This record gives sequence, structure tokens and C-alpha cells, in this order.
Amino acid sequence: MSSYAEQSAATGTPAVTLIGLGPMGRALAAAFLAAGVRTTVWNRTPGRDTELVERGAISARTAEEAVAASPLTVVCVVNYDASDAVLRRDDVTAALKGRTLVNLSADTPERARDTGRWAAEHGIAYLDGAIMTPVLSIGTPEAVFLLSGPADLYERHRPVLDALGGTRTHLGEDIGRAAAYDIALLDIFWTAATGYMHALALAKAEGITARELAPFAQGIGAILPSIFEETAADVDDGTFSGADNPITSAASTMAHVIHASEAHGIEAGVMRAAEGLARRVIGEGHGADGMTRMVELLGRR
Amino acid sequence: MSSYAEQSAATGTPAVTLIGLGPMGRALAAAFLAAGVRTTVWNRTPGRDTELVERGAISARTAEEAVAASPLTVVCVVNYDASDAVLRRDDVTAALKGRTLVNLSADTPERARDTGRWAAEHGIAYLDGAIMTPVLSIGTPEAVFLLSGPADLYERHRPVLDALGGTRTHLGEDIGRAAAYDIALLDIFWTAATGYMHALALAKAEGITARELAPFAQGIGAILPSIFEETAADVDDGTFSGADNPITSAASTMAHVIHASEAHGIEAGVMRAAEGLARRVIGEGHGADGMTRMVELLGRR
Ligand SMILES: NC(=O)c1ccc[n+]([C@@H]2O[C@H](COP(=O)([O-])OP(=O)(O)OC[C@H]3O[C@@H](n4cnc5c(N)ncnc54)[C@H](OP(=O)(O)O)[C@@H]3O)[C@@H](O)[C@H]2O)c1
Ligand SMILES: NC(=O)c1ccc[n+]([C@@H]2O[C@H](COP(=O)([O-])OP(=O)(O)OC[C@H]3O[C@@H](n4cnc5c(N)ncnc54)[C@H](OP(=O)(O)O)[C@@H]3O)[C@@H](O)[C@H]2O)c1
Repeated sequence: MSSYAEQSAATGTPAVTLIGLGPMGRALAAAFLAAGVRTTVWNRTPGRDTELVERGAISARTAEEAVAASPLTVVCVVNYDASDAVLRRDDVTAALKGRTLVNLSADTPERARDTGRWAAEHGIAYLDGAIMTPVLSIGTPEAVFLLSGPADLYERHRPVLDALGGTRTHLGEDIGRAAAYDIALLDIFWTAATGYMHALALAKAEGITARELAPFAQGIGAILPSIFEETAADVDDGTFSGADNPITSAASTMAHVIHASEAHGIEAGVMRAAEGLARRVIGEGHGADGMTRMVELLGRR
Repeated sequence: MSSYAEQSAATGTPAVTLIGLGPMGRALAAAFLAAGVRTTVWNRTPGRDTELVERGAISARTAEEAVAASPLTVVCVVNYDASDAVLRRDDVTAALKGRTLVNLSADTPERARDTGRWAAEHGIAYLDGAIMTPVLSIGTPEAVFLLSGPADLYERHRPVLDALGGTRTHLGEDIGRAAAYDIALLDIFWTAATGYMHALALAKAEGITARELAPFAQGIGAILPSIFEETAADVDDGTFSGADNPITSAASTMAHVIHASEAHGIEAGVMRAAEGLARRVIGEGHGADGMTRMVELLGRR
């Protein structure tokens, strides 16, 4: 162990290394520092840690030095191509041996499982994780983290991870589980966010400002959670009920959005793809069913 | 006026005619009845009014008889092709003369404006409207209605429309305004709903049930309203800030969703279209901006 890690072990002060200082990595580091965790930081592009060092962070010169500084390394970069580029170098991999790595970068379950295999081969204790809330949530009760991997490892590091605020859910020992939840949830998030961007463009073309639309958009956002809950039961039970809202009605509405957009010269590729799914459900004779029938259509092999 | 309308005028009992008895039309009629409004109903396909008649609704034999029965007719059918098919027949149009029509069917602003012109030509007082909440919200404080058209007409009929529960917002005299808000809001709703359906299919392929995903999906839903509010200011001010979440990061995440879906044989057309927009923004050199840059890209003529 390096002198940092020895010191941490000797004093009992919790210590963490943070690799990746994008907006999210900086927020994580700031939360660790605010909680009194000894925090070593490193980022591919230098100079991103100035403010963190002012708050007490230790700036490592290399990734190897960074991971050697703490028993626990948290990595939060854009994706696993990026985390591989940092971690899968002989010196860094060797320095991680016997320590714990938590990868909070987003990617597919496949990449998380591959990283799990690599970690096992190199004697690195590994948890995979995902962050489900925005930068501003970090360190507040709103933050939501998902984790998967060995339960004892999770329990061991939970006290220091608690510094990040909010809630942590351990989804089980399958290392790919957190990423599986993550991609499904990001599927919802980015589809909805893109829909909102499109709606703002359409509204603008109709002379409605974003600030005028926003309160009503928030109203739409507010009804989604209960709809999400109700439709989940429908899907698991295979009932696909359209009693209150047949997919023929949805498809008609989707067509209005496409028509009105294109009349303004605004492309509607996202809604065209969504309407295509609805039309396929109807074409198969399920027009009286609800939108949940799309799940069965999409999942069919 | 027919005997029904005369009677209503004589007794002072508020009276309304409801055309269209799909899930939403039936909910509206039930709310009017529950509030003690004299309610006449008609639907293209007979037999949909059995339960309503048990609760006191008057079943009209024809659309003409229906509109003649009340000073106010509310129509709620699938779209304006459907409402035109019912209303733009000489006998029905003639019976509407001197009365008020409120069209709560969903369609484009263009169709609402066209209906406004038709109504003016035929001496029909006209309000256009949209319903922004599900069937179960009707008659409860959760119901949200948008209306546009002459302000005095809106004020005159507000007391009877209040029977539908929830809130009504009069968006101004431009008859197309309610439909313009409606399509923008439905753009958000159906994009998000389709994203959720896709996420449920993807989760299922990963061994996650809908009920397991739902609480976390509700968490995503819960963060949308504040994101909607913040990004609206960004868009109106033309700042497109990506400080906390650059669109390069979003595009990377979208690619994971596509990759993981297609690896399971689940088509990802909606996310492919969304990612395409993000990639176009990046290709134009705006990768450090936030997703709000999409609004500018989409709206460019
Ligand atoms: N921002 C949010 O609101 C949010 C919310 C939830 C989850 N997340 C997730 O958190 C992770 C980090 O996100 P972020 O917001 O901080 O921004 P980001 O743009 O996704 O990631 C930026 C970080 O990735 C690093 N990076 C990119 N390519 C690299 C490479 N080839 N080698 C080494 N490092 C590389 C950058 O280093 P350089 O500075 O050298 O470019 C920087 O540290 C992502 O997986 C994101 O999906 C973010
Ligand atoms: N359901 C919801 O949660 C909800 C929420 C907000 C807004 N809305 C809007 O409310 C409106 C009504 O929706 P809905 O849920 O009741 O179901 P819908 O399937 O959209 O509409 C069904 C109604 O349209 C009628 N119709 C269809 N084609 C017709 C035609 N050519 N001529 C005459 N009538 C025709 C049907 O009559 P038949 O019985 O004869 O087929 C039935 O009365 C739609 O515009 C919808 O977008 C619905």
C-alpha cells in the first residue's frame, strides 16, 4: 500500500480515490470531501481538480498513484471504453490488486460483466453501480444509486458510500444487474427528455414559449409515476388492458403530433418510430388493447 | 329549441349533451350526471350508454336530437375526422345553430381553427378544448382541461364545465391555442410512455420484471418536472447549457440503450431517432452543450 493508504488505515480516516472529474465525478468528489472523507482525485485531462484541491482533495499525478492512495477507488467517466482506457493498463491494474473498485460510469450490463471478469482475474474486489439522479442531487437526500456485486463487499464500503447522500440499493450479486436497471431507466429518461425537447420546438413554432408550456409539461410529468405503476402490473400479468385508453386512440394522437410538427418543418423521427410501433400492434389485430401491448411486441423473438 | 332544451331553460337546471361515448366520453357524462347536470348522450355505435342511462342520462336516438336537447354540446370522439363525421351533416349543423359547441376531442391546431371557421359560418358558438389527464381523473381534483375561444363564452359555460372536476385553463381567444398546447403535451406524454414500454421490454430481457423496475421508473418520473422547469428557462434564454450534462454524455448513454436492446433482438427505433438528433448536435460542434440544443436544431428552418 502507498503511504496515503497506510495513513488512512493507521488513522482510521475513511479514504477514497475518485477517477474522472466530469460534472458528475466532481460532484461525487465534493460530496466525499464535505463528509470528511480523505479524497484523492485524478482525471485524464489535468486541471479539472483546482476547486476540489482548494476544498482539501489530494491531486494525484497519475492514475496509478491515484488508485494506490486509497483502499477504495470510485470511477465515474463517460463509459467503459473510457474506464478501460484508464484502468486496464498494467501499472494501474497492478496497483488495484487487493483493493476495491466501484465503477459508477454508465454502460451496458455486458460491459459491467466483462469488467467483473477482468477484476476477478486481477484480484480486484469489484462493485458495479449506476447513478440515477442529476449532478445537483449528489450529497442530498434526492440522490439515487444502484449497486450490484458481492453483498459483503457492498456492506463493507457502505459507510463511505453513504457520504454521497441519498439512497443506495444493492440489487444483488449479479454484477450486471445495476447496469441492467440503469439502461432500462435511462431508456425512459432520454426518451422522455428528447420528447420534451421536441415538444418545446413544436410549441415554439405555435407561438408558445418554453416557460408557458413548462407548468403543463410538469403536469404531464406528475401523472407519469402513477401510470408507470399501473402499467407495470398490466405487463407482468399479460393483461394489456386498453379499457381506458385503446392504442388506436394513442396512434391517432401520435399522428397529430407528427402532422403538426412536419407542417412546421420540424422532423418527427422519434414520434414516427413510436407511432410505427402502435400501428404494428393495431395491424396485428390488437387495436383495442392498451399501449402495454407494445412491450409484448418488442420482446417477441 | 327542442322540448328538452325548453324544459332546461324553464327549470333552470343546467343541461348538456355529450357526443361520443368512448372511455373518455363516458367519464365526462358520468361526471356531469354526478353533479346533477341534465345529460343527454349519443354515440355512433349504439349500446354504449346503458350504464349512463341507469344513472339518469337521456339517450338520444340521433345526433340531431342530441344536440337539440341542450344549449351546450360537448363532443369527445377520437379526432376531428370523427367529430366532422357527426357534426357536419346538414341536420346536425342546423340543430347546433344558436347553441354552444365545446370540442374536447384531440387533434391539431389547424383542425381546431378549421372547426372554428365552420362554426362561425353556421352561427354556432364555439370553444375548443383538450383533456390532459386520464379517464380516472375526470370528476376528481386531478383533472386538467385546456380551453380556447371567446372569453365571454368560456365564462358563460364555466359553471357547467366545473362539474367535470379539476382545473380549467382558458388559454385565450385564438381557437387553436388549446390544441397547440395539447399536441406539445401529448408529444411529451406518448414519447415518454413509449420509452417506458421499451424499457419494460429491455428490462424483461435482462430478467427484471415490470414490478421490479416500476419503483425506480417512478423515481425517474419524479425528477422530470424539475428538469422540465430548468430546461425551459435554458431554451427561452437560448443558453443551451451543458455544464452539468453535456450532450456527448447523453449520446453515449443512448448508444448503450440501443446496443443492449439490439443485443436482445429488441428494436430500438425510438432511441435511434433520439440518438440521431444528439449526434447531429455534436456533429455541428455543440457537443459541450446540453440536450436543449436539440430544440434549436429541430426548430431551425
Ligand atoms: N451528469 C449527470 O447528470 C449524470 C447523471 C447520472 C449519471 N451520470 C453518468 O456519470 C458518468 C460521468 O458523467 P459526467 O456528467 O461527469 O460527464 P461525461 O461527459 O459523461 O464524462 C466525463 C468524464 O469522462 C472522462 N473521459 C471521457 N473519455 C475518456 C477516456 N477515453 N479516457 C479517460 N477519461 C475519459 C472525461 O475526462 P476528460 O476531462 O479528460 O475528458 C471526464 O472525466 C457518465 O457515465 C454519466 O452517464 C451523469
Ligand atoms: N382515454 C384517455 O385517457 C384520454 C385522455 C385525454 C384525452 N383523451 C382524448 O379524448 C378523446 C376520446 O378518447 P376516448 O378515450 O374516449 O377513446 P377514443 O378511442 O379516442 O374515441 C372513441 C370515440 O370516438 C368515436 N368515433 C371514432 N370514430 C368515429 C367516427 N368516424 N364517427 C363518429 N364517432 C367516431 C367512437 O365511437 P364508436 O363507439 O362508434 O366507435 C367513440 O365514441 C380522444 O381525442 C382522446 O385523445 C383521452
